[in-house]
Amino acid sequence: MHFMTALKAAWQQRNSLLCVGLDPDPAKFPEHLKGRPDAIFEFCKAIVDATADLVCCFKPQIAYFAAQRAEDQLEALIDHIHAAHPATPVILDAKRGDIGSTAEQYAVEAFERFRADAITVNPYMGRDSVDPYLAYADKGVILLCRTSNPGGSDLQFLEVDAPAGRMKLYEHVARTVAEDWNASGNCGLVVGATFPAEIARVRELTGDMPLLVPGIGAQGGDIAATLAAGRTANGTGLMINSSRAILYAGKGEDFADAARKVALDTRDAINAQR
Amino acid sequence: MHFMTALKAAWQQRNSLLCVGLDPDPAKFPEHLKGRPDAIFEFCKAIVDATADLVCCFKPQIAYFAAQRAEDQLEALIDHIHAAHPATPVILDAKRGDIGSTAEQYAVEAFERFRADAITVNPYMGRDSVDPYLAYADKGVILLCRTSNPGGSDLQFLEVDAPAGRMKLYEHVARTVAEDWNASGNCGLVVGATFPAEIARVRELTGDMPLLVPGIGAQGGDIAATLAAGRTANGTGLMINSSRAILYAGKGEDFADAARKVALDTRDAINAQR
Repeated sequence: MHFMTALKAAWQQRNSLLCVGLDPDPAKFPEHLKGRPDAIFEFCKAIVDATADLVCCFKPQIAYFAAQRAEDQLEALIDHIHAAHPATPVILDAKRGDIGSTAEQYAVEAFERFRADAITVNPYMGRDSVDPYLAYADKGVILLCRTSNPGGSDLQFLEVDAPAGRMKLYEHVARTVAEDWNASGNCGLVVGATFPAEIARVRELTGDMPLLVPGIGAQGGDIAATLAAGRTANGTGLMINSSRAILYAGKGEDFADAARKVALDTRDAINAQR
Repeated sequence: MHFMTALKAAWQQRNSLLCVGLDPDPAKFPEHLKGRPDAIFEFCKAIVDATADLVCCFKPQIAYFAAQRAEDQLEALIDHIHAAHPATPVILDAKRGDIGSTAEQYAVEAFERFRADAITVNPYMGRDSVDPYLAYADKGVILLCRTSNPGGSDLQFLEVDAPAGRMKLYEHVARTVAEDWNASGNCGLVVGATFPAEIARVRELTGDMPLLVPGIGAQGGDIAATLAAGRTANGTGLMINSSRAILYAGKGEDFADAARKVALDTRDAINAQR
């Protein structure tokens, strides 16, 4: 699967910009799953199967699996998505960032071991720390740019003397990725929904580059403002992530039905603004 | 184990500033280990047992284990270090960085699952992305500041308008960690040996804060310049990392002896400049 091709096809064919984030927290699982050795896989599989026709991609967050010693369940989950929903790209949310020789190992982890179609990467260590992911030209490389958390401003919003002039650090990251790192056309950026003005600025700097937008739902971002700021001319260009609001919509045996209902409402609320 | 207490004790009692980085690459293993299911553990255990009396800490790089589906061997390795060399702190080199709720999961991974005494963390997402690690007051939190790779300058060396005035981004990170994030006294910084002038500047900004210094050996950093720039008044303050030059010093069944010899030479070369 070529990530960018599959993403564009999913935007059109599913008529959806929704990305469901898979952040499995066993403490929040329905009672009937608690204590089962494969609870993480079963929980996520049920969410995936209930929502796949409503999404443009899935985004498992590796920290939730690693904290539970459940890498094997993450492997099984991604295998299941590829087998049961083959047109649905999978972004491994890992936010890796390290020197080239180590980044090569992380790229093996993400793309060969876990078989993800894309990965999130931290830009703080610069170009050669990103090259090993870019070398997989059919995989997506989604760089952190302007994150949705309160501390996102601590570094990203500083005014810097960039080679192209004075700008905020996140603008320098957006420009650098768009003009330099994206030679194979496989880059995207993370821009939080809590900052629509910055989504608009990133869209201005990056043309039609796909933007992964966390922060709606639990984090308080506004759907209308996000769409107005970030959609491309054809009404796509965004992967709008929702995790907790969908995953934990229900607490009973019908949790997947409850998740589907919230996913459907979220997709439709997004589409109403396209 | 309290990381900072253990590190200071190891500096004194071992008379060493050397950190051995554990980056196990099976392609470089001696022939007699190749193909064994526990080769990664056996390789690293032999290195650890041959060098523990020469180091102030060990630093396993998690990417090398994750790429090989060998998290279980990393768990076993850190358990072995705690059991066989209980005064030797273990830094998990993971360079994690994510929003608070996800960072909590990564902190569980590093400190509870893998039982590391410290972790490396990326500062790009700001304060609340670091708080969940800082909340473990007995654990070390070592923030990326000025990294040793060529692309390290892409962001870190930009001139920024920081709240405290105009400075380079890495200087803002060093100041912020020293003056704000280090309330529990459990922070350190990563500063590459390839930039001695910046080590000196970070030392100036951070008092006696421990600096993890990669980049000697394979990456070309200079030991004398590193020591002159970074040692504290009592001749410590540094964890000088060497990985490949020690791990792959020998190719035969005596690889651990060869590793010990290089580790001893490196420790002594460092001590000659203290």
